[in-house]
Amino acid sequence: MASGIRVGVLGSGGKVGQAIVAAVEAADDMDFTVGVDKGDPLEAFTESNTSVVVDFTHPSAVMGNLEFLINNGIHAVVGTTGFTEERLDQVRGWLGDNPGVGVLIAPNFAIGAVLSMRFAAQAARFYDSVEVIELHHPHKADAPSGTAYRTAKLIGEARDKAGLGPSPDATTDELEGARGGVVDGVHVHAVRLAGLVAHQEVLLGTEGETLTIRHDSMDRSSFAPGVLLGVREIGRRPGLTVGLEELMDL
Amino acid sequence: MASGIRVGVLGSGGKVGQAIVAAVEAADDMDFTVGVDKGDPLEAFTESNTSVVVDFTHPSAVMGNLEFLINNGIHAVVGTTGFTEERLDQVRGWLGDNPGVGVLIAPNFAIGAVLSMRFAAQAARFYDSVEVIELHHPHKADAPSGTAYRTAKLIGEARDKAGLGPSPDATTDELEGARGGVVDGVHVHAVRLAGLVAHQEVLLGTEGETLTIRHDSMDRSSFAPGVLLGVREIGRRPGLTVGLEELMDL
Amino acid sequence: MASGIRVGVLGSGGKVGQAIVAAVEAADDMDFTVGVDKGDPLEAFTESNTSVVVDFTHPSAVMGNLEFLINNGIHAVVGTTGFTEERLDQVRGWLGDNPGVGVLIAPNFAIGAVLSMRFAAQAARFYDSVEVIELHHPHKADAPSGTAYRTAKLIGEARDKAGLGPSPDATTDELEGARGGVVDGVHVHAVRLAGLVAHQEVLLGTEGETLTIRHDSMDRSSFAPGVLLGVREIGRRPGLTVGLEELMDL
Amino acid sequence: MASGIRVGVLGSGGKVGQAIVAAVEAADDMDFTVGVDKGDPLEAFTESNTSVVVDFTHPSAVMGNLEFLINNGIHAVVGTTGFTEERLDQVRGWLGDNPGVGVLIAPNFAIGAVLSMRFAAQAARFYDSVEVIELHHPHKADAPSGTAYRTAKLIGEARDKAGLGPSPDATTDELEGARGGVVDGVHVHAVRLAGLVAHQEVLLGTEGETLTIRHDSMDRSSFAPGVLLGVREIGRRPGLTVGLEELMDL
Repeated sequence: MASGIRVGVLGSGGKVGQAIVAAVEAADDMDFTVGVDKGDPLEAFTESNTSVVVDFTHPSAVMGNLEFLINNGIHAVVGTTGFTEERLDQVRGWLGDNPGVGVLIAPNFAIGAVLSMRFAAQAARFYDSVEVIELHHPHKADAPSGTAYRTAKLIGEARDKAGLGPSPDATTDELEGARGGVVDGVHVHAVRLAGLVAHQEVLLGTEGETLTIRHDSMDRSSFAPGVLLGVREIGRRPGLTVGLEELMDL
Repeated sequence: MASGIRVGVLGSGGKVGQAIVAAVEAADDMDFTVGVDKGDPLEAFTESNTSVVVDFTHPSAVMGNLEFLINNGIHAVVGTTGFTEERLDQVRGWLGDNPGVGVLIAPNFAIGAVLSMRFAAQAARFYDSVEVIELHHPHKADAPSGTAYRTAKLIGEARDKAGLGPSPDATTDELEGARGGVVDGVHVHAVRLAGLVAHQEVLLGTEGETLTIRHDSMDRSSFAPGVLLGVREIGRRPGLTVGLEELMDL
Repeated sequence: MASGIRVGVLGSGGKVGQAIVAAVEAADDMDFTVGVDKGDPLEAFTESNTSVVVDFTHPSAVMGNLEFLINNGIHAVVGTTGFTEERLDQVRGWLGDNPGVGVLIAPNFAIGAVLSMRFAAQAARFYDSVEVIELHHPHKADAPSGTAYRTAKLIGEARDKAGLGPSPDATTDELEGARGGVVDGVHVHAVRLAGLVAHQEVLLGTEGETLTIRHDSMDRSSFAPGVLLGVREIGRRPGLTVGLEELMDL
Repeated sequence: MASGIRVGVLGSGGKVGQAIVAAVEAADDMDFTVGVDKGDPLEAFTESNTSVVVDFTHPSAVMGNLEFLINNGIHAVVGTTGFTEERLDQVRGWLGDNPGVGVLIAPNFAIGAVLSMRFAAQAARFYDSVEVIELHHPHKADAPSGTAYRTAKLIGEARDKAGLGPSPDATTDELEGARGGVVDGVHVHAVRLAGLVAHQEVLLGTEGETLTIRHDSMDRSSFAPGVLLGVREIGRRPGLTVGLEELMDL
């Protein structure tokens, strides 16, 4: 007799959706109920007595999905993008009317990326110097990556708060671009290399020692453990939670 | 007009002591008062109106030093080893009679080593697998290092607490020693190489991603920033503090 | 009008075979002719005017395949295992009767693995110390990996030839296994971690400096560039070539 | 009875000179004869029957030193900078009159840096992508380092010769500088961080795999093993040798 968390998936036909279905099916403490794709009725979740739904769909669909899920007492774990402050307020409104329901909305489900950012921000104030190197496959359009951008911003904030000025740098003779891009005072370097997937290093240094926090995503499945973590925790966290780190008790 | 923290050094004639004197003198917010070595009178600290004393001496001397300092209202930052539970209780007793005084006793003042251990322990429960690699100069007598040993123990505790079993390992055909030593269920590898100083990597992995926390000590001065941090904070922390991490608000 | 090298694949139905077919089809300077699997007639290659055949089949099939290919003037690139000295002699015999044909037999087609071994062996005599760390997914049965074993043997030979003794090591107090396994005097450490694929680091050190040669295989397709290199070169190298490195003009 | 190579040092009073004297004295197969500094007579070398002299002096002094050494049959290992093609021709002229004498002039005596450059150039043609990251202490004035500059130039030449175009790069949206500086088509990133000394990574990548060649100089003594190698070899290499790699039989 099945006794796991009953989990459904929205956007189950896409690449990401399929990977999530596979991950749910492989988890000992979960039961996959039903996948719903564009055009399918959302009632499949209520009929199957689903407890948590994972939504990796589209900004144009996600608000309708959330309204239905929340009003039917179903928790949601959401990786879909496009959440403005206005949209978050709308979700909070629906949750106000359904106080037992939990919704997690997160821009990044890679646990290692989330931990890297957190640790980098925590460590930043103890070090004179910090730089970020991100390394990706050569098909990526933006440099630096969104994660590197956010990481640098979090580090910059932590340094500001600690009253640290800019990292020391005696460069007077620079080949254009050699010292990288600068985000909130933090130098960021973007490497593009065939054979890589998605990687990031934060380097922190002070007299005589350095600390390096490196995250490697080897394949696209690296969001799966974070999604499963969200599914396990969201039932105990009524209301809106933004960011996977909020569930991680760091 | 001097306005920095007035800092004295015990064991000022040794290598470590000299490095601390230099670090104090280089710090904008500190004034070096006096160095005291074996045989010199401790009264030099009271006469010089010293506020905080750093003690990197010897287990045979440190208790006498602490009794004097605490009874004279001087804060202490202690890197000397050999503190048993009994000794710590003795220090707590003296501090009970001098409630305004703060004493920090820490086995490791390398900020990066302290952060590495903390982050490794925090991250451990999110990962299926974890191993530790420490790398040192070839003159080191013990393998693994004390820091690697403690790191593995902290990780093992965190995994236990999270209900994780051993890291997956399908090895059936092993050259003796290839899989490393095992500390509390965590595999630990010790590399000895000319040209290295003191380095450690914690590798954590789950489906599709890994997180690596690496600490590099390039020279013996890597304890200095941690000692200065202790000097800055201990005046605001009356009583006994054990471990630099307790001052770091992580 | 086709003008590329006409390439056929033996074992085209298997995972590796399919990856090779895809790589050949994607290469601008090659035309895929035909795939042959167990039970299919080898004449498909002569009928399709194939110039080079790639064989990733089975030790029980490969000798028959090679006899046919060589006698029909078709070059071969072979990743199938199980070649004894006796078998190599047999292949040399067939080639003696067909002097224009080239055959490449290689145990490892990952260019980075081949280069790593070569560079490690070249660098070994300039360094006091050397150790090997290999890191793999946790489903691997043997520790260390075959590549790490071969790498250590090549390094050991190079050190012997240069008259170097063992790497310096002052360890007197070792947790069992912490210092790794020993292959020909070289310490080898095997890490097993979820999220990893296949990785290896050779660390070389002398006074004040270290050199690290690291190879990362991110997925199973990492043999493809080496196979294509073999296909491009083997037509100009009549006779038997053993090992991809022989084609690389290092 | 001494039986080692008799080695003298020019510029023995400087930091580098002192380190070389110490390294020579520590070498089992060498005997230190005499150190000569600015103003001291060069005859000290002939009087002490010195066989090889190491010169780390100044562009304004080195030509006079070399003329004396060569004319007196003494081999030279030279780390002094400022050698134009004209100066090299002058040295060749003196050596033409003294055919038994060997002179080594090298811009870089760090064996690891020399090997890194060589291996990077050898590997370059097998990889679609290559980038260079150099990492130094924050007191460095130029970015990228001279070694990174030379490494990129050697890689660029090797790629040109192999008919490779630029590394693939789909970047369309770049924060200024994020993708680094470009030297002969190779992206180069310069990190400046407290706690670092001098480090460099060459990253090479192709479908499914990467190769990384990393060199770490932990202290200023990292030129010593290269100098000793030069001293050992130069007696057997009459004439002018430019670059340590020429003695390394790679």
